[in-house]
Parts: sequence; structure tokens; C-alpha cells
Amino acid sequence: MTTIKDIAKVAGVSVTTVSRALNGYSDVNENTRQKIIEVAKQLNYIPNTIARSLVMNKSKTIGLLVSGLKRESSKDNFTFEVLAGVNQYVGETDYDMILFSTNSTKQREKTYTQLCRERRVDGAILQGIRIDDPYLQEVVESDIPCVLIDIPIKSETVGYVTTDNVLGAKKAVQHLLELGHKHIGMINGHEFAFVSVKRLEGYKQALLEAGLPFYEDWVVNGAFEEERAEREALALFTKYPEITAVFCASDLMALGAIKAVKKLGKRVPEDIAVIGHDDIFLASYSTPPLSTVAQNVFAMGYEAAKLLIQMLEGKAESHVKILKTELKIRESTVKSHE
Amino acid sequence: MTTIKDIAKVAGVSVTTVSRALNGYSDVNENTRQKIIEVAKQLNYIPNTIARSLVMNKSKTIGLLVSGLKRESSKDNFTFEVLAGVNQYVGETDYDMILFSTNSTKQREKTYTQLCRERRVDGAILQGIRIDDPYLQEVVESDIPCVLIDIPIKSETVGYVTTDNVLGAKKAVQHLLELGHKHIGMINGHEFAFVSVKRLEGYKQALLEAGLPFYEDWVVNGAFEEERAEREALALFTKYPEITAVFCASDLMALGAIKAVKKLGKRVPEDIAVIGHDDIFLASYSTPPLSTVAQNVFAMGYEAAKLLIQMLEGKAESHVKILKTELKIRESTVKSHE
Repeated sequence: MTTIKDIAKVAGVSVTTVSRALNGYSDVNENTRQKIIEVAKQLNYIPNTIARSLVMNKSKTIGLLVSGLKRESSKDNFTFEVLAGVNQYVGETDYDMILFSTNSTKQREKTYTQLCRERRVDGAILQGIRIDDPYLQEVVESDIPCVLIDIPIKSETVGYVTTDNVLGAKKAVQHLLELGHKHIGMINGHEFAFVSVKRLEGYKQALLEAGLPFYEDWVVNGAFEEERAEREALALFTKYPEITAVFCASDLMALGAIKAVKKLGKRVPEDIAVIGHDDIFLASYSTPPLSTVAQNVFAMGYEAAKLLIQMLEGKAESHVKILKTELKIRESTVKSHE
Repeated sequence: MTTIKDIAKVAGVSVTTVSRALNGYSDVNENTRQKIIEVAKQLNYIPNTIARSLVMNKSKTIGLLVSGLKRESSKDNFTFEVLAGVNQYVGETDYDMILFSTNSTKQREKTYTQLCRERRVDGAILQGIRIDDPYLQEVVESDIPCVLIDIPIKSETVGYVTTDNVLGAKKAVQHLLELGHKHIGMINGHEFAFVSVKRLEGYKQALLEAGLPFYEDWVVNGAFEEERAEREALALFTKYPEITAVFCASDLMALGAIKAVKKLGKRVPEDIAVIGHDDIFLASYSTPPLSTVAQNVFAMGYEAAKLLIQMLEGKAESHVKILKTELKIRESTVKSHE
């Protein structure tokens, strides 16, 4: 393997000059630097990024801490799309990414901060962390730059990317209101998810603006799980037969709600209209196809990586990025007239 | 931050002893080692794995080179499930993984070998690489231990994990034969995918054993893409109206084939039966639900990580792992009698 000694010999300069030229120090003459870079290319020099990272105190690596890299989560493609988005942006830069999964037993023993320090990442993106996670506080208070997905914490070293969840939920409920529904339930995720708190807020706002009352009992938690949501929906529809429409805080839970309606021998949307949130691939394949609030998860990953790298390079103008949603109307709320 | 100097002071031993104890050298007395480890824990010592990797020449990191980390590939969840499987096994060990995507422009400039060397990974798992990829040969001939998914190359430093693709395809076609079909077409992926070569072999074997002729024109390539498969299927069914059943080398392509049948005003399975391969989540949600050959992609990722780490630690008994498939019969081949 070629070393910087070899490059120094061929280029006719000192080893120190080669090192300083390749590491981007400004005290090397530009012509000399160009010559050194050319020689390095000719000799097929592979820089030792690890050794360099010790010198520069930069690893050019970002950590991605995700909680959803589990077999079960391939059904909603959330984690995958975040990953694909991060990967797309990172691929456009000279950074690499290290993936840490926060659900393995190993990672629970170490805090996120320890993980980041051990692997010397320059910064981290956190996805799928509950707001009651004790390690979240720690990493946010540390000096490790990080970007959170769907958790609104902002500081000098912390930024976040999220979707306008209040408005998204509001649009979904307003769509149901426009169809004439007056008794609208909600199947939410869980109270430790920031998005659930916000989507509930949007649901309440839409009812309030329409002059309708808010009944706490008409909101149940389905933990973002299809089966759990099916059970909760079944109980909700049985107890309150006046409910004619339901907004679900995720598409997977909406698929569960559709199953519950069918189990009761009722029809979607004629008896109970169902609208979800996310626009996962399954949404357009379900029977009937699912109306939903589409969020651009790929863009969330892409923007999170972009924001983090801007922060690392001192170029971030804002530490917050909020993405828009889009209402997709399908047959689970509006019967087609084919 | 605690350094080994602090540990040495508290434990009352030399810095060298601490270093040798923590790095697993055998010349340290076992009682001393235990004491040092306890002190390190008490002082909340975080080892500098990068510095250690330079000394030990091991980074305890495996590289995962995937090609499918693109937005479009979230529809079939193949790459995600490989990732989840690798992540699951890696999480059970003291290794971490670095993810490289092979479809970004950056990575095309560097060979896989360069990537692995630059980031000092101990070994690599490669997924989604075409058999005509010029860099494949290079990494396989290098001294970097690697495990390939779905490419059958074996050497002292190379192993692979795959599914029994011949038998899987054969089972699918035999299922169609048992239903009485005698004119069975095939929609394959492309010739540079090892799995396509093998699934074609299984298709031919099943026909041969049933005493039926093989017509090359009845096999078309859909490039593993839904739309492409739909176009190819439409052309195939139009040109050869005697075809009553089709085996598709992936579920996405089978969904395309179902669309083609519907476009021709025909019914699945009454006029043309369709069977896929993979058992992606969409398979059971399509209309009609798709019969398919299920492969355990999560297990492929898990087994690939297991094999690589066994190889790295000199504990691999075999460099080959072949997984089984399972036939899933749904309504795209057998009409339900509800």
C-alpha cells in the first residue's frame, strides 16, 4: 500500500508537506498541493481515514440511531424511507454513516452518548425515540451535534425535522366534516410520541372550528399497531354506535380499523368512513383503498442529514425544518361511483 | 473523560498493565484484570475504539454494501429485511455495522475494496450486486473477508447465503401443473441476477419432469420492476393467448402481471393464474391475494452476518448457507369457494 512517504519521494517534497496538503491545511502552496494530489492519485493512495480522524478530530461519519429496524416494521416502510433519505444525502457528500439500532440488548446497556463517542461520530440523527426515553435527555444535553426526527427540541447543538402534524390531522378531520360526518372518533398512537400529541391537537382544532364537542372517550390509543388498533376500534364502535367516521394516526392502525368495521358486519365507507396518516404503500392496495394524509418520509431523512451536515460545518441557517403533508382521498372515505 | 491513566492510578498498577488488561492480552494476571475492569466500570471509562483499532488492527466493524437503499425499493421490502436481519445479529455481538450504499455517485467512483479499506471494516456483506459488476471480482479477489447474498462464490475469504431458488421455482410451477395448467409462461428478472438464472432452471425442470416442452418465447424479462413486467406480460399474453398461467420471479412483477390480465379484460385466476416469488407484504393485500414462494429475507441477513463474524473469528464450519422456501397458495391461482 502507498504511504505518504512514497508520495513525498515522487513529488520531491517533505512528508510533512504531503500530510498538510492532503489534510487541507492552508499553509501549503496551491501548486504544490495540486502536484501532491496528482501524485497521490497516480500512486493509488488510500488515505487512512481512521488515523486522520484522530489527528483532525473529525471522522466524517454521522451516526444514525433508529429504533424501528425490526422485522415487524417492514410493513410500514417508515424506518426504511428515513434510511433511504439519509443515505441519499450522505451519498452526495464525503461523509459516511454508521447505523446503530436502539432496540438491541447491546445498545440498551450503553447510552446513545457512549455509542456516539466510542465510534467518534461527528454528529447523530435520532429516529423513533420516545419522548420519555431517559437517554434522549442525555444526548441532547451533551455536546454531540444531533438532529431529531419528529421530536421538537432545539438548541445550539440540536435541531429537528418534522412534519406539520397539527395541520395534517386537521385536514383529515375537515375532510370527514365536509362529507357530513358529525360523530368522528380518533385512534391515536401513544402519549409518548410527539406526533400523537400533535395529531390529537389537530383533531381537536378541527372539531372546535366546526362547533362540535370533543369527547375524550372517542379517542383511543392503538400504539401504532395494526392488531391493537383493530381491538380498540372494535370496542370503540361497539360502545359508541353513533360514530360514523374515524381518523387514525397511522395507516397501519387504519387498516386495523377497517378490519374492525368489517368484523361488525358494517361497510367502509357507507357505515363508517376511515382515514389514516402516512400514505404507506399498503394504503393504496387495501380494500377499500385508504384515504390518508401523506407525509414525505424520504424527505424527512434527506433533510435531517442535510441539516446535520450543515450544522457540523457551521452553515445551518436554522435548526428546524418542517415538512408539509398532502391529503389523499380514496375509497375508504368516498365511495367511488364506477 | 476518564483515561487509562486515571484507571491506573485508582487500581494502583501501571498504565501499560491497564492497557494490556483492557485489550485482552494474556500476560496480565486474571485477578488484576478483574480489578482493572471493575475500576474502569466505576470510573465510567469509554474505550476509544478507533485508537484501539489501530493497535489491534481490528475495528470490530462490518461493512454492509447494499444497492437497494433507494426510495423506489421500499415497495418490495427486500433490502429493509436484509438490513433488519443483519442488524439483529450484529446487535447480539460487540460488532457495529457501517452501511454503504452502492448506488450513489460517490460510491461508483471508489471500488468496494477502497471503501472497505478506507473505513477499516473487518469484513463486508454485499447485497444486490449484479454478477457483471466489475468491482465484485475485485472485492472477492481481495483479502477482505466477505459474505455475498444471492451470489454463489466461495473461497477462503468469501462465503455466501442464498435461497434454494431452483427448488422454489420448481414448486411454484408444479403447483400450476397440479391445477391442470399445460401452457405456463414465465416473467423473469434479468440475466445478470443469479436468482433469475436459478429460477429459470427450476421452471425448466418442472416442465421437463411433467413431460412438457420448454418454449424460450414464453419467458420474458421484467427487470424485477412492476411496470416493466406489466408491459412484458401484456405482450406475452397477447402474442400467445394459449398461455393460462404464469410464474413470476418476483411478487412485484406478479402484481404487474395481474394488472396486464385485467387490462385484457380477463380474470385471475379463471383465465390466467399468476404466481409470484418472495412473499412481500403487498402479496396478501393484492386483489386477488397473490400465491407465491415465500423466502425468509430477514433470515438471509441474519445468517449472512452470523457467517461473516464466524469467518472473522475463525469459527466458520462452512462458508455456504442455503435457506428453504415455502409455497403460499392464495387466490391468484386457486379461486376461493366462499
